[in-house]
Amino acid sequence: MPAEPKPLTFAIPKGRILDEALPLMARAGVVPEAEFHDKNSRALSFATEASDMRLIRVRAFDVATFVAFGAAQVGIVGSDVVEEFAYSDLYAPVDLAIGHCRLSIAEPVQGRGNDTGASHLRIASKYPNITRRHFERQGIQAEVVKLNGAMELAPGLGLASRIVDLVSTGRTLKDNGLVESKVILEVSARLIVNRAALKTDERVAALVERFRALVADMKAAA
Amino acid sequence: MPAEPKPLTFAIPKGRILDEALPLMARAGVVPEAEFHDKNSRALSFATEASDMRLIRVRAFDVATFVAFGAAQVGIVGSDVVEEFAYSDLYAPVDLAIGHCRLSIAEPVQGRGNDTGASHLRIASKYPNITRRHFERQGIQAEVVKLNGAMELAPGLGLASRIVDLVSTGRTLKDNGLVESKVILEVSARLIVNRAALKTDERVAALVERFRALVADMKAAA
Repeated sequence: MPAEPKPLTFAIPKGRILDEALPLMARAGVVPEAEFHDKNSRALSFATEASDMRLIRVRAFDVATFVAFGAAQVGIVGSDVVEEFAYSDLYAPVDLAIGHCRLSIAEPVQGRGNDTGASHLRIASKYPNITRRHFERQGIQAEVVKLNGAMELAPGLGLASRIVDLVSTGRTLKDNGLVESKVILEVSARLIVNRAALKTDERVAALVERFRALVADMKAAA
Repeated sequence: MPAEPKPLTFAIPKGRILDEALPLMARAGVVPEAEFHDKNSRALSFATEASDMRLIRVRAFDVATFVAFGAAQVGIVGSDVVEEFAYSDLYAPVDLAIGHCRLSIAEPVQGRGNDTGASHLRIASKYPNITRRHFERQGIQAEVVKLNGAMELAPGLGLASRIVDLVSTGRTLKDNGLVESKVILEVSARLIVNRAALKTDERVAALVERFRALVADMKAAA
């Protein structure tokens, strides 16, 4: 008799994407145990209705890291995170067409474009790699100050002349006297897999096909 | 008549340290407006009872960044964050004797020490710089996988053989089958200031003296 296969680990992000991802995951047969929905739970790892799959719920950036290192075989994360890391062992085969937003440059309404023509810009962002690459392509040397949140504070306090941040409704920018000046990346959630796991574990390939078919159905129905 | 001085910006971290820091700040005359305590507020910046000071509430790592770049002149943050960044423009003159915890190495209870003697370790941590320095001093080459949270998952999923993380009660480690094997750093909250601001703005020097006196009083009363 063959040994029980090691359970698959499916990594999903806290926050924004999760509410839209759960119904899609359910249609693909990935349904977490009840404790997952208990807001007081301190658990990080959860069983699912399938005995050979567990979920981990971690920060979006960490979803990519767990999958890239093969500690999770499958995950769901925004294309912003996929682009930021550019891990070679991470493959993003399915655009799930949920979690839409954009990664944009924003700057103060007052004094807009004051730094245009400057040979050196200071930009605050949670996405140093994407930001640096974007400005490099434009021949502008950008010093990126990495922040983990509250980017919107940076221009008003003189930390940076612009920010690069996720924008959804634009309300947070407006509340902080900022205006979106350029979209760098249209973002949506992706199914991601570890490349080695995809080659060696049939269950990973099967999951990819299930999600791919689901998205095709959704598009046909829309 | 001299111009009104620019308001000082005081940066404080969300989370763990804040509850202990607020009473101390109040005794130093730093009292945020009521909205600060409104859990539904989306504001990032707050007035205080002093017309020439405002508060910003950001992530702990970002407190250090705002102060190091002079976007905030003063802040409160754990010594873990001060050590991790080692910013030359950030000065931490007062140990506030609150927010005590420790930065420790932890590893699985089962298989403890299995990696001892290995010439190469993989460690998951939110503190890549402190971790790398610690293992270098021991002559061990450590590959640090940077995670932003949920470090405790890493050993069980094969992402790393050990983690370096903040430990307070040790309960989270225990819940995840881990044991604290070495303390790297005893952590407490520090008053931090921007070095240039300390030299050029008397209000910053006065704040440092006020906090220093408060801590001395607390110690005398203990």
